[in-house]
Amino acid sequence: MRKGILFILSGPSGSGKGTILSKVLEKHPEIKLSVSMTTRKIRPTETPDVSYYFVTKEEFESSIKNGELLEYATFDGEYYGTPKKKIDSYLEKGIDVILEIEVQGAMQVLEKAKDAVAIMITPPDIQTLEKWLRGRGTNSEKSILERLATARQEVKYLPKYHYSVINEENKQDECAELIYSIMQAEHNKTIHRKNLTDKFE
Amino acid sequence: MRKGILFILSGPSGSGKGTILSKVLEKHPEIKLSVSMTTRKIRPTETPDVSYYFVTKEEFESSIKNGELLEYATFDGEYYGTPKKKIDSYLEKGIDVILEIEVQGAMQVLEKAKDAVAIMITPPDIQTLEKWLRGRGTNSEKSILERLATARQEVKYLPKYHYSVINEENKQDECAELIYSIMQAEHNKTIHRKNLTDKFE
Repeated sequence: MRKGILFILSGPSGSGKGTILSKVLEKHPEIKLSVSMTTRKIRPTETPDVSYYFVTKEEFESSIKNGELLEYATFDGEYYGTPKKKIDSYLEKGIDVILEIEVQGAMQVLEKAKDAVAIMITPPDIQTLEKWLRGRGTNSEKSILERLATARQEVKYLPKYHYSVINEENKQDECAELIYSIMQAEHNKTIHRKNLTDKFE
Repeated sequence: MRKGILFILSGPSGSGKGTILSKVLEKHPEIKLSVSMTTRKIRPTETPDVSYYFVTKEEFESSIKNGELLEYATFDGEYYGTPKKKIDSYLEKGIDVILEIEVQGAMQVLEKAKDAVAIMITPPDIQTLEKWLRGRGTNSEKSILERLATARQEVKYLPKYHYSVINEENKQDECAELIYSIMQAEHNKTIHRKNLTDKFE
């Protein structure tokens, strides 16, 4: 039976990554999304074990100590991390997992999960990203400038990613299809067919 | 503008490769098929410059001497080869080219065309191939045994191919889609996005 593959998905804030990811998962419900673990308080709109695994600081630190996380970071004094066990259990069952994560976390995951495939979604250029961020009308000038600065830094990590999917105006459906194509192509790489030659002896 | 990619397509006789290739080209007429050059006589069913480029022995040998072929071989005393120029002209225009070729030729092409992507289509196992070859009802016992022996040798080259697509009973449409997915995935590899980081400065 084919094993699942872990796909890392990153992209600057405002790149349309969230919408594209939703479309992939909606059309292909057999693909699972990795759920992160955090010590921060649950918010009213969130569902435990779906939005995040909510744990205590002690539980989180024990997970770190026991090597149970693919990556972790602190943000606003709270821990955030990616538990390895659940992902591995899906992969063993042949289920593909998508891990949506920012660039620094992706770099940590790529170090530990050597077979993971990393995809970055970006707009075609920084000008388009700025237009989209301003177009939302909900971002302050400060927030827009911060996001643009972060995007500039993030895109520098593109060479560490295996694939680069460019989102354009009204092209989220095409991008979602493309990500699914990449996932299927990866399963048909020769490295995943080590036993096939035996079947021709 | 994106450049085209040369895709090498191989597979044992009886693997369904021809049917799958026709389906890819029918659904995606923008993809071009590489036309081989040969010194053998044209057959009544063939069209010059579509089936083959038909040339004299002198013309073929001059092409060899001038390094104009990606690969060549002799069969039954006639030359067969792949002219480089037409393929390069398509790739420059951003057009993808599929080169259907047997394993030995594919190895030669991979040596010269470093950016080419090689896909092998196979049945799931040798037993299935035998069933398909016998199922046609048109092959002699000798021909069946020869094809099976050749297939066993060909599949040994699988590790040299980038992708391995397994054709199963009545799955030609899925295989054709998969090959198209692989082609799209390849275009979105980060190595083809060297200028993207410049657009975020």
